[in-house]
Amino acid sequence: MDPQAVPTEGRPLAGLRVVEVATFVAAPLGGMTLAQLGADVIRIDPPGGAADHTRWPRAASGVSLYWTGLNKAKRSLCVDLRSPRGRDLVTRLITESGPGGGIVLTNAARPWLSYEALSQLRPDLIHLRIEGHHDGSPAVDYTVNAATGFPLATGGEGQDDPVNHVLPAWDVACGLYAAIGLLSAERHRRITGRGQELSVALGDVALATAANLGFLAEAQVNGVTRPRIGNHLYGGFARDFTTRDRHRVMVVALTARHWADLVTATGLRAPVSALEAALDADFSREDDRFAYRDVLAGLAQRWFAGHDLEQVRQALSRTSVLWSVYRSFSELAEDDDVRANPMMGLIDQPGVGEHLAPASPLGTTEARRPVRAPVLGEHSAEILRTDLGLSDHQIRDLQESGVVASPLPEKKGTP
Amino acid sequence: MDPQAVPTEGRPLAGLRVVEVATFVAAPLGGMTLAQLGADVIRIDPPGGAADHTRWPRAASGVSLYWTGLNKAKRSLCVDLRSPRGRDLVTRLITESGPGGGIVLTNAARPWLSYEALSQLRPDLIHLRIEGHHDGSPAVDYTVNAATGFPLATGGEGQDDPVNHVLPAWDVACGLYAAIGLLSAERHRRITGRGQELSVALGDVALATAANLGFLAEAQVNGVTRPRIGNHLYGGFARDFTTRDRHRVMVVALTARHWADLVTATGLRAPVSALEAALDADFSREDDRFAYRDVLAGLAQRWFAGHDLEQVRQALSRTSVLWSVYRSFSELAEDDDVRANPMMGLIDQPGVGEHLAPASPLGTTEARRPVRAPVLGEHSAEILRTDLGLSDHQIRDLQESGVVASPLPEKKGTP
Repeated sequence: MDPQAVPTEGRPLAGLRVVEVATFVAAPLGGMTLAQLGADVIRIDPPGGAADHTRWPRAASGVSLYWTGLNKAKRSLCVDLRSPRGRDLVTRLITESGPGGGIVLTNAARPWLSYEALSQLRPDLIHLRIEGHHDGSPAVDYTVNAATGFPLATGGEGQDDPVNHVLPAWDVACGLYAAIGLLSAERHRRITGRGQELSVALGDVALATAANLGFLAEAQVNGVTRPRIGNHLYGGFARDFTTRDRHRVMVVALTARHWADLVTATGLRAPVSALEAALDADFSREDDRFAYRDVLAGLAQRWFAGHDLEQVRQALSRTSVLWSVYRSFSELAEDDDVRANPMMGLIDQPGVGEHLAPASPLGTTEARRPVRAPVLGEHSAEILRTDLGLSDHQIRDLQESGVVASPLPEKKGTP
Repeated sequence: MDPQAVPTEGRPLAGLRVVEVATFVAAPLGGMTLAQLGADVIRIDPPGGAADHTRWPRAASGVSLYWTGLNKAKRSLCVDLRSPRGRDLVTRLITESGPGGGIVLTNAARPWLSYEALSQLRPDLIHLRIEGHHDGSPAVDYTVNAATGFPLATGGEGQDDPVNHVLPAWDVACGLYAAIGLLSAERHRRITGRGQELSVALGDVALATAANLGFLAEAQVNGVTRPRIGNHLYGGFARDFTTRDRHRVMVVALTARHWADLVTATGLRAPVSALEAALDADFSREDDRFAYRDVLAGLAQRWFAGHDLEQVRQALSRTSVLWSVYRSFSELAEDDDVRANPMMGLIDQPGVGEHLAPASPLGTTEARRPVRAPVLGEHSAEILRTDLGLSDHQIRDLQESGVVASPLPEKKGTP
């Protein structure tokens, strides 16, 4: 990779070089986000892979679809970090990488990899560490989510048990905050010449988000704990309905216009007006729609139950009503719209085969093409040769002594 | 605000100036993320506020805690965008804002606010538009979530109905991607002198994330639809348990070490070993832990059911086991740890009162202090005077003709 690479609209981060020493979701997603916008992100793994290398889901070959999903577009260097020679290689990779380099993303607390140690060698170092909690204690998405209030507010009103999320939303948000942190620090460095040390804790991302959305203030200021309201939207009118042919649809009326269109499309003007008069309510107001949501949903459900999905689509498609059909991941994967989405493209991932995968969700004027994840150690030799200037002899020596690993020839796959 | 403001470690985005013409969650969260790192973010609202200005939850005064949560640290300009004079003011604010300006964040498709129109006046314009779907059709978090597979994979195995999330995770992620897009484009501009047009669709953020985490590949490649598994973690051992004194705890054993520590702490070595021998299984392996999760959870649950929370805490605190206690938003708000968190601080929000709120989750060497949200139009006069150079006479004229609004004196609150 040419560290002097010039940014373009589709690769605005070209010239940026990040060394990622991390596992699981948050940090790798942050690194991948930057890689998919043109940054050169080198992911460091121990020979044979780290703890996340075999995480579910896996392809029949044993390759982790989780790993290949979260590490697209990166380069892979496999090096034994228990060895002083291995640590020295990574240290040089970080500190000797030109003006766009000297950037570390990690989720572990290794003294040799710390800001203190590395900034001695590279004074303008940018170092971001993802933590579980701000005090350094460990946490994962699921433990943070439990402690932040959402599982006890999820599910129907009769629900007693906490409901965990399937999407590790805090890992995802944390990884994105890490990308924001690195880009912000790089801006600061470009302008002032100074590097810096940053951190972001999974627990803080969850706490901040719960506060940003008003949940924490509501509890502090109103003395209210957000109740369980099933699939309803808090403070408005939105809910799931079942069609005659047993499809489930989610319908959202956020504004007075959405609501008016929904009432018209479902032919409910008469009963809704009668209710408004009898209850002295005004359902064009969100508050009243929410207060009487069960009544209004009851009326609407009869309409949905009397129409097939295709009829529902006809009735709602010419309106402002926001709605969608619930579907499974399998149905999502088979959807022609997904195939046709400019963000999606085919990648041929060794051990997995050809399948649709996404490039960055950020669209620009340049066409997007996803780049597959590396095979473990795929770029070890290239990095040692091109980025660190080692000779073939030196590289072979490191491989033979197990300090560095490259894939066996038959596993290499198409670059 | 001095557009020449020099970045610092705690305010790495000082000198960046963003004009935000957007509502609801995604774009405002993106803008706030930048504002909390030092960018000057001016949020534009119509006089009286936009559709999100009264969203739940609300304080007793009627002020929206959702709005005040999502718009911290911004400046507020209230201007009638239906008026040509109003549009001209915003156009000038965007295009005449010095080298750190010329940046627009929006979630609406207004022709006068488009990249095409504005880049005529400011060739290096950076313009990011958040959309529902990539084809421009509208969507909101809840409709996107339904269509992306998660609600049908959430909840217990007996669950039939879709389970919506309470956290609008796609809004949150989309806003963070928008911040990443703006920072990336600013880097590109700083290096090449060129601006650009970007977009990010809520639907694409959800689709990309489902793919990045392996859900889409699993469906395409393995022909498997992710089943419902309640509060279990897919592919490992993690679940909720109930203590003797009726507390719910989430326990996660991701690695062999976590598992060994959990088995030791719960005194289950003997039955677990007996099972391993009888089943020819090895529970130090994640696959086997997952396959036999119900058996292992059954054993563990008896231990938790026989111990109070305090005893559980004693037993697990000296181990590597990852765990937490489920709590409500109210319990979260009352937690001393939250008060003591360096990210949190007291803000005095007009119409709400004093309460704990978060600064950026990104920690640097500088102390973090949250800055409250503006009152609607709080900075109208200041922006017209200082940023646009208008005279007091011109400002009064705009206010009297209703093109621009400022708060009534008694609503202003402490700056």
